[in-house]
Amino acid sequence: MSDASKPLKVGIAGLGTVGAGVVKILQGHAGLLTRRAGRAIEITAVSARDRSRDRGVDLTQYHWCDNPVETASLDDVDLVVELIGGSDGPALTLARETLSKGKSFVTANKALIAVHGKELATLAEKNGATLRFEAAVAGGIPIIKALVEGLAANEVTGLHGILNGTCNYILTRMEREGLSFAEVLADAQRLGYAEADPTFDIDGIDTAHKTAILAAIAFGVAPDMANLPVEGIRTIAPVDIDYAKELGYRIKLLGVARKDSAGVETRVYPAMVPLTAPLAGVMNAVNAVVVHGDYVGETVYEGAGAGEGPTASAVVADIIDIARGNLCPAFGVKVADLQTLPAIPADKHYGTFYVRLSVEDKPGVMAEITAALAKEQVSIKSILQRGKADDGGVYIILTTHRTVEASITAVLERFNALKSVLEAPAMLRIEEV
Amino acid sequence: MSDASKPLKVGIAGLGTVGAGVVKILQGHAGLLTRRAGRAIEITAVSARDRSRDRGVDLTQYHWCDNPVETASLDDVDLVVELIGGSDGPALTLARETLSKGKSFVTANKALIAVHGKELATLAEKNGATLRFEAAVAGGIPIIKALVEGLAANEVTGLHGILNGTCNYILTRMEREGLSFAEVLADAQRLGYAEADPTFDIDGIDTAHKTAILAAIAFGVAPDMANLPVEGIRTIAPVDIDYAKELGYRIKLLGVARKDSAGVETRVYPAMVPLTAPLAGVMNAVNAVVVHGDYVGETVYEGAGAGEGPTASAVVADIIDIARGNLCPAFGVKVADLQTLPAIPADKHYGTFYVRLSVEDKPGVMAEITAALAKEQVSIKSILQRGKADDGGVYIILTTHRTVEASITAVLERFNALKSVLEAPAMLRIEEV
Repeated sequence: MSDASKPLKVGIAGLGTVGAGVVKILQGHAGLLTRRAGRAIEITAVSARDRSRDRGVDLTQYHWCDNPVETASLDDVDLVVELIGGSDGPALTLARETLSKGKSFVTANKALIAVHGKELATLAEKNGATLRFEAAVAGGIPIIKALVEGLAANEVTGLHGILNGTCNYILTRMEREGLSFAEVLADAQRLGYAEADPTFDIDGIDTAHKTAILAAIAFGVAPDMANLPVEGIRTIAPVDIDYAKELGYRIKLLGVARKDSAGVETRVYPAMVPLTAPLAGVMNAVNAVVVHGDYVGETVYEGAGAGEGPTASAVVADIIDIARGNLCPAFGVKVADLQTLPAIPADKHYGTFYVRLSVEDKPGVMAEITAALAKEQVSIKSILQRGKADDGGVYIILTTHRTVEASITAVLERFNALKSVLEAPAMLRIEEV
Repeated sequence: MSDASKPLKVGIAGLGTVGAGVVKILQGHAGLLTRRAGRAIEITAVSARDRSRDRGVDLTQYHWCDNPVETASLDDVDLVVELIGGSDGPALTLARETLSKGKSFVTANKALIAVHGKELATLAEKNGATLRFEAAVAGGIPIIKALVEGLAANEVTGLHGILNGTCNYILTRMEREGLSFAEVLADAQRLGYAEADPTFDIDGIDTAHKTAILAAIAFGVAPDMANLPVEGIRTIAPVDIDYAKELGYRIKLLGVARKDSAGVETRVYPAMVPLTAPLAGVMNAVNAVVVHGDYVGETVYEGAGAGEGPTASAVVADIIDIARGNLCPAFGVKVADLQTLPAIPADKHYGTFYVRLSVEDKPGVMAEITAALAKEQVSIKSILQRGKADDGGVYIILTTHRTVEASITAVLERFNALKSVLEAPAMLRIEEV
């Protein structure tokens, strides 16, 4: 560890938007941060692929490393900030090198932590180093600090998060403008709100990485991407957004983590949340997390999920923490104290469900539908039938009482087998958060 | 300081609801908290006025002090939790005694910190002790940690908080049930949601204490109750709640803190917030704080503001922090680094305003009203006239463009002097948070 009476010397690997933002804050707020940290925080080295690119910040006084992994080895680097990205490759090598040398490692890399978090925390502990990743989840919202420290008195029983700004932006525009998923995605790509390859965002993988990290910290387990079923938002149809509203809900892509006596359930899926719930009011690219603790009850955290300023703000908060000597374990407890809890599989999920069926408009159809539900012991909470705009069929919209997901899967199979059902049914989980 | 390899020994002074809650958490989550803190946290001493009272927790193994100040002197107390309350008296004596001995001091006492915070932080620093008060503001929401640590990379430019559950509960019921302030207050007192003497809550004093603390931490200044004009909710009429809604707003009692080049403005007043803003959705006894940082943008924190579980959760989080060795200064910077910034007086406040006038229904009145505004250079954003239910007069409802508060005060004086104005005008500030 570095001497707390001396400046903390920082090497930054990766100088994209966030990296430039970190430089801006450390340069622009130098005096303020020194007062807060109780010591100076000095950038000493930087690394990126292209040295010649203008990043809008003056990097001339810093040591330049062509190879990011070099930053870990420099004598005048106490702490490495990794902003390269990717779960493996140079980011992982740099993390291992840095922590092995007993130096602190700060990253915004959710994939790295979701996949290799336990290994890296172990390495940190073994070498007396500090590993921090506040910026990896929900950008500017200090949710990791809230879970590890602010809510440390609680057994956390569950959390729900809107963790991907791109998805929330797409869902917001689909609702407001009545457009299809494909239409909004194309426009979002044109405007730079979605990547050219949007898979990581819209298929829920980014949300899954963040959910794995939050669940690990909340429950004191290792991040576990292997037991985290993921569904994205490609299949969300405008008609379901409309029916959600009619039923008093709004559709959001959620990262969900629950713990009970049976084990831990971590999931990513689009779900209906009540219009009166805090998460329903979170629009555009904003992120939010609702945490349930046994003593504190429900607390909600909301803010920008990405972008130069918010993400850099989180990175710098981690650096200040380390400068101050706040060195608690990466996942809130020592690695040896991380628990191994059973993973609750998707088919054992209990909840309430929304199903939309497109059916022939003829006598007996409703009887077939309700019979299928009855056979699987699924109790109907509400059911309604509506004419369709596009053809002669009708929609049947139903919500269920609390039941196990396996029963819904079985019901959907029965629906699919009916000749009067014209399309694959749409199903969404309802989360009464 | 206590040795970090040994248990942290805690004395608790004050065994009301929150004190009992702290005992419950420390007893019930002992194993979990030991893993999180990296060491055991042991209650060794307790103190309260009445030893015989059943508090629903087993206190038999703890040293009992009849005098709370005694807890500070016990050899087997490293940290004192103060839950007595009041800005002076035994709470203050205990704080001074504890910190003078170099022991840590954790409190939920907003009045104590708002009034004596700087003195106590100085004492803590001088004696190598840690002072913490997460539970003093917004109960279960870790807002102090968010400001001191989570957002430490930012210059905070402003914050708005719903910080008093009683007031928010009263305003919620006034709106939902169309009742008067007096009616809801009486019922809230009957139900235990408001104190027999509700002055501290409804006149905004409790919110002021919390605002002074948040402003101190956000801006790196000492808490300053002397420059914090306070207005409560006694004067809020149901008709203003209705007009607020019609204009797209909801009335909330806010603690407001702003910093700009002119200085710091801290205020407590009921204000109109847009129905689409996060604070508008905060109902019943829930608390929430919106913070604006220069890099992070807007972040929002929401949760229970009071009660046994949430408040005890915050107290125990402070204890865990100290057990972990997270010892950063009480106000985020050393006392010597606290700045002295000019206080912006109320009449120099800039904002937009809502005014409701009760006037005679006769020709020329609107001309008198608009002339008064013109004389004070106040520009009208919207104006409407409505019939009154109760007598022959009419209401004139107006909102202004951005102007200085002194002009509004002058306008209200002009209105009051008009014979056609039948009652004292109602005025509310509009906060576009």
